[in-house]
Amino acid sequence: MNITAPPSERRVALDSVDAVVRLIFKTAGLSDANASIVSQAVLSAQLRGTRSHGLVRLPYLVDRLVQGGANANGYPTVLTEKAAIAVVDGDRALGPIAARIGMEIAIEKAKHTGIGAVTVRNSDFVGTCAHPAMQACSAGMIGLVWTNGHPGMAAWGGAERAIGNNPLGIAVPRGGEPPIVLDMAMSVSAGGRIRLYAESGKPIPADWAINAEGQPTSNPEEFILGGSLLALGHKGFGLAVIGEILAGVLAGARILSEVPEWFRIPEQPIGNGHFLMALDVAAFIDKSTFEARVSELVTTLTGSKVVAGAAPVRLPGARGNELEAEQRKMGLSLDQKSEANLLELADTLKISREVENLLQTVEEVGR
Amino acid sequence: MNITAPPSERRVALDSVDAVVRLIFKTAGLSDANASIVSQAVLSAQLRGTRSHGLVRLPYLVDRLVQGGANANGYPTVLTEKAAIAVVDGDRALGPIAARIGMEIAIEKAKHTGIGAVTVRNSDFVGTCAHPAMQACSAGMIGLVWTNGHPGMAAWGGAERAIGNNPLGIAVPRGGEPPIVLDMAMSVSAGGRIRLYAESGKPIPADWAINAEGQPTSNPEEFILGGSLLALGHKGFGLAVIGEILAGVLAGARILSEVPEWFRIPEQPIGNGHFLMALDVAAFIDKSTFEARVSELVTTLTGSKVVAGAAPVRLPGARGNELEAEQRKMGLSLDQKSEANLLELADTLKISREVENLLQTVEEVGR
Repeated sequence: MNITAPPSERRVALDSVDAVVRLIFKTAGLSDANASIVSQAVLSAQLRGTRSHGLVRLPYLVDRLVQGGANANGYPTVLTEKAAIAVVDGDRALGPIAARIGMEIAIEKAKHTGIGAVTVRNSDFVGTCAHPAMQACSAGMIGLVWTNGHPGMAAWGGAERAIGNNPLGIAVPRGGEPPIVLDMAMSVSAGGRIRLYAESGKPIPADWAINAEGQPTSNPEEFILGGSLLALGHKGFGLAVIGEILAGVLAGARILSEVPEWFRIPEQPIGNGHFLMALDVAAFIDKSTFEARVSELVTTLTGSKVVAGAAPVRLPGARGNELEAEQRKMGLSLDQKSEANLLELADTLKISREVENLLQTVEEVGR
Repeated sequence: MNITAPPSERRVALDSVDAVVRLIFKTAGLSDANASIVSQAVLSAQLRGTRSHGLVRLPYLVDRLVQGGANANGYPTVLTEKAAIAVVDGDRALGPIAARIGMEIAIEKAKHTGIGAVTVRNSDFVGTCAHPAMQACSAGMIGLVWTNGHPGMAAWGGAERAIGNNPLGIAVPRGGEPPIVLDMAMSVSAGGRIRLYAESGKPIPADWAINAEGQPTSNPEEFILGGSLLALGHKGFGLAVIGEILAGVLAGARILSEVPEWFRIPEQPIGNGHFLMALDVAAFIDKSTFEARVSELVTTLTGSKVVAGAAPVRLPGARGNELEAEQRKMGLSLDQKSEANLLELADTLKISREVENLLQTVEEVGR
């Protein structure tokens, strides 16, 4: 069952969709360079199958720029630094811009010292943490990105929203192969996924959410009406607390209920924070040895015995890597809702003709 | 239900138990300094309620020294380093010794660069990761320690033992208050806990383990007879993979099935690895601001609403902090099995009289 699959989709050249998204962000006030950074972040999520952070988020991001909650001219700067760390003020730029700069700094530090860590405060919605984490891989480094966010999750044993599900992204470079990519939030399920169940009128598993009275519920509407996400056990809650401390407290950012629900208040700053880290593999161990040993690990685990008829074991990010490779080859799979979003945004921003011209279906290949 | 609570216990002065444990390790070949380091690690686990890594492990650790799998004269050395990282060869010293040195180096690096990361290869059983992580807190730093280990857990979707449950410890300093301490393995439950269920003849929850055929089982004996631990969902498996890469591959250590089950082969090296990291809070943010904000976070989360009659929300490490404070004040609670272990070891090592003299019951206070 793939509940995220929309009823109808068509294939559009990735470059064309990228051109559309860049045009939309430029029209909403971003520089060429920043429009390109944000487009890459949004399209990375879309390509890798994390559609909740892909094109469906565009109207909200544009709204934040237009209404002023996010700063279209935001220019993240370093507030303080040491040889291997830096603290960045995000200047209310869109999250992917601050994260891109933060990870660039972490990578530069790591080139000299072996590891670099950067905190970002005064930021905005960052998108997937996997995307800036993968940025480190192009430099031969392991990337780690943690963010805090609006509290939609109950504390472990709690009955009300108390903490963000604080997503974590970790990416491991594999030389010529696509990276290993862990991209996880600390709740059992994401809120966006529960909203999709609500739209489909389907019940949710009993361990995903509690209602406003703190009782388990399988009704997604009860979650939406003031319920809370459930943590991935006390361990998931523990990790969310650590994420809140690294990305929030250590960054000097807003924490817990100080962080508003970003897509509901486009005119207000979010002010959340991120923690970004790059580990230079070559500082620890010969790079080719590392890659060979990671390959060994992948081969062993994916070859691990499964029960008769079960799907083979997959490593974190394997599905995302496959979806991305397929769409880069065959064209981006554009669903109706995302396309409607693009056209509506184009209309609002008075760039309808340009956008319509760009969104041509790729010649159907093997569909 | 506290399944780990033994039927009968008595209180012994912590210093006396420490003296006994140090004497045992010195007699087994460790230097004064190293005996003290290992005793601290074992007693920290015992004091904090992680008894599976406490005094019950002593016979196995001593056996490793006596049979030669661990090197009583092991002298961990730095193989390579940069400003903020180092790679350590553990020289088959007991894990707590290598971890102590690794974290010391990480802390020294972090004092200068803001963050320090150290990998250790050629190591041995490390005990709880929380203990070396907390070492960072005394220097005002956030500590993170990850280890790999013998594969007792199935890959997500797998039907056989494939990867360690790769414990992670993270400790956050709180000035005068006890630290926040996350101490978690990536399986739903630890193997040691399932063994305790087996001893009590109690069934285990259905999501803890699979049997040798890869089928879920509530019979703890079926886990022991070739079954596998289950990961904390695909996210827990993903984290175990990252732990295997950081503590194993990046460290140049043994990985997956190369790592033997440490307590079964006292005459063979384990050769697993660790990843240790220290983050200097003061490099990022004013220390008093950090502590005030962490306190705010603790107050908010522990004050979070619970359903009527439920226990209040606790933060990671809260129970361990309470147990440790209570036992430091009232004396260490020595259960019969641990005491029998101590006396048997004393007998084997021909130090019975000294040990018996040291193990005097503390005057009963308020029990």
